[in-house]
Amino acid sequence: MASKHILIVPGDGIGQEVTAVGKKVLDKIAAKYGHTFTYDEALIGHVAIEATGQPLPDESLEKMRNSDAVLFGAVGHPKYDNDPTAKVRPEQGLLKMRKELGLYANLRPIKLFDELLGASSIKPEILKGADILFFRELTGDIYFGEKGRKNNGDTAFDIAEYSRYEVERIARKAFDAARTRRKKLCSVDKANVIETSRLWREVIQKVALEYPDIEVEHQFVDATAMLLIKDPRRFDVVVTANLFGDILTDEASQIAGSMGMLASASIGDGTGVYEPIHGSAHDITGKGVANPLASILSAALLLDISFGMKAESDAVIQAVDKVLKAGFRTRDIADATTPAANIFGTEAIGEEVLKYI
Amino acid sequence: MASKHILIVPGDGIGQEVTAVGKKVLDKIAAKYGHTFTYDEALIGHVAIEATGQPLPDESLEKMRNSDAVLFGAVGHPKYDNDPTAKVRPEQGLLKMRKELGLYANLRPIKLFDELLGASSIKPEILKGADILFFRELTGDIYFGEKGRKNNGDTAFDIAEYSRYEVERIARKAFDAARTRRKKLCSVDKANVIETSRLWREVIQKVALEYPDIEVEHQFVDATAMLLIKDPRRFDVVVTANLFGDILTDEASQIAGSMGMLASASIGDGTGVYEPIHGSAHDITGKGVANPLASILSAALLLDISFGMKAESDAVIQAVDKVLKAGFRTRDIADATTPAANIFGTEAIGEEVLKYI
Ligand SMILES: CC(C)[C@H](C(=O)O)[C@@H](O)C(=O)O
Ligand SMILES: CC(C)[C@H](C(=O)O)[C@@H](O)C(=O)O
Repeated sequence: MASKHILIVPGDGIGQEVTAVGKKVLDKIAAKYGHTFTYDEALIGHVAIEATGQPLPDESLEKMRNSDAVLFGAVGHPKYDNDPTAKVRPEQGLLKMRKELGLYANLRPIKLFDELLGASSIKPEILKGADILFFRELTGDIYFGEKGRKNNGDTAFDIAEYSRYEVERIARKAFDAARTRRKKLCSVDKANVIETSRLWREVIQKVALEYPDIEVEHQFVDATAMLLIKDPRRFDVVVTANLFGDILTDEASQIAGSMGMLASASIGDGTGVYEPIHGSAHDITGKGVANPLASILSAALLLDISFGMKAESDAVIQAVDKVLKAGFRTRDIADATTPAANIFGTEAIGEEVLKYI
Repeated sequence: MASKHILIVPGDGIGQEVTAVGKKVLDKIAAKYGHTFTYDEALIGHVAIEATGQPLPDESLEKMRNSDAVLFGAVGHPKYDNDPTAKVRPEQGLLKMRKELGLYANLRPIKLFDELLGASSIKPEILKGADILFFRELTGDIYFGEKGRKNNGDTAFDIAEYSRYEVERIARKAFDAARTRRKKLCSVDKANVIETSRLWREVIQKVALEYPDIEVEHQFVDATAMLLIKDPRRFDVVVTANLFGDILTDEASQIAGSMGMLASASIGDGTGVYEPIHGSAHDITGKGVANPLASILSAALLLDISFGMKAESDAVIQAVDKVLKAGFRTRDIADATTPAANIFGTEAIGEEVLKYI
């Protein structure tokens, strides 16, 4: 019986709708297992800019630092996407949060619930049994290097950077995880062209010496983008840089049937942040159709990783599984065989999950 | 009846085997249509390093400049991949060739031959009718910016750079192509994070004003990596930066059934270079099993784009189609229903293609 303080940071778009459901699941777990969870809320992204002018107000950051864990939604707004010259952007809030909280390791487990085999565009016989754990480096690379314009604004530049230390610490996390799984690690880089990738590969090779029990392979990012679709089962743990991880994990969402199913954990020096990998999805915002299962599964990761509540975490995952087994779907994970009556909105499918906890 | 001088640059690994077949196809076309094609050969990559110490000897570059077109194989060797500290690398030859010949536009058509619907890991009903033309920028971005080490080698950096001019010229090529197709253009960037992407998006928006008949959309690279698998038919022409194009086109090879089917054209200021998008594939080198159809289809692109020989080019594509219709396959594009007797090696399937020209 533990007492924990959880910060809810819905952010933009469907972030609001899905984290509301994630929070209900945490509540139900607290009630069932006799924990005391207290909550607060904080602003980030477009909604924070509207309210305060800042994509991540100091107050939000303070609250994050003082929480035991953060349940996060999404950031982003089409307004800024269509204006490449905007100076203040929602995503700056997300990046600042990652940097300030030292969230250098982003874990993205890709696992297909058997019931969703049909929902993917990939053939079931290729997918069945696929189970990948991505470690995406989250506080370095081209995301955080110097960037700007020169030649009167006619040339733009971005600097990608990695230090040995940065690669080493994410490598160790990935190798440690591989030990608890199928003992395979694939490191993804572009060492045939990029210097940061060559440093990356050197460091992985060196850390690998400490893990003789782990089978290590190095793949180029282009080949990996192909192999993930051709043969997803060949991967166990995948570790890669920030930008490559961004691209490859979105791609890999198709292995899990839908982006709407994928949770992630961002961990590092302090408070852990848990969020769906889907974005703000303004096209479906406010319609009540967003899939909250990724937020619910993010809550499960939160319970497991930040609170060490393995049984509680499993209870959430089992409940999601049961809802799927019962045949209930949100629109994004329905297929041609799903009866219309089984297609639920955000809140309704959330209620089903609660019933099974 | 034309006279043309073609340079064959096989490069490394299976490059040797597949360009030999591509050349035979060019020969057959010359004989059938009464053209005179003369040939020379040049070294690049690992084989060039072994012979001369240079990944792209001056002599090779001179020969490229003095040819009407180049049929290219692949570069790369595991020796360098496993040694991130190697100073001279096969890929440097490829990059230097692209830069020196001003090959700023890399065209990668992704189209599934109907007969290969079963060979992909993606469901046939998702794939059927997919037809994408990628324009990958090929002489800028993080590939060509300054790169190096600092802090006693403990930090590595790479600079990504784009000028307006560089984006504009590839944009125009892509918009022009969209006009001859389904009039849709998707520009891919990461403008929510990266400054070069913001410049990219600005320029695309500006050039779009000159093409009011083209429907333009902007997508983030992570979302695109997902959408390519989820719904490949939504794309017509895709234009993107060098690194994103590298990743996305390899991924998109799965839409075409196999990497072994994909040809590319690199064009710009001078001689055009035509090459399969598969790499050197040392694991199957010398075994006689490499799929030469990408090299053959590269020869078809060469005929069309560099020589303006549309009928000849179509004859090659038709011949490939007929071989597939006849049920013949190389190993990589065979599926469970292919009888063993129909699985051919590199030369044998090449001979079949020749028969149909
Ligand atoms: C919103 C964006 C800045 C972000 C990223 O690129 O990291 C998102 O795509 C993600 O993967 O969390
Ligand atoms: C070999 C490598 C340098 C090259 C690239 O990254 O451009 C290859 O992957 C390609 O796509 O032509």
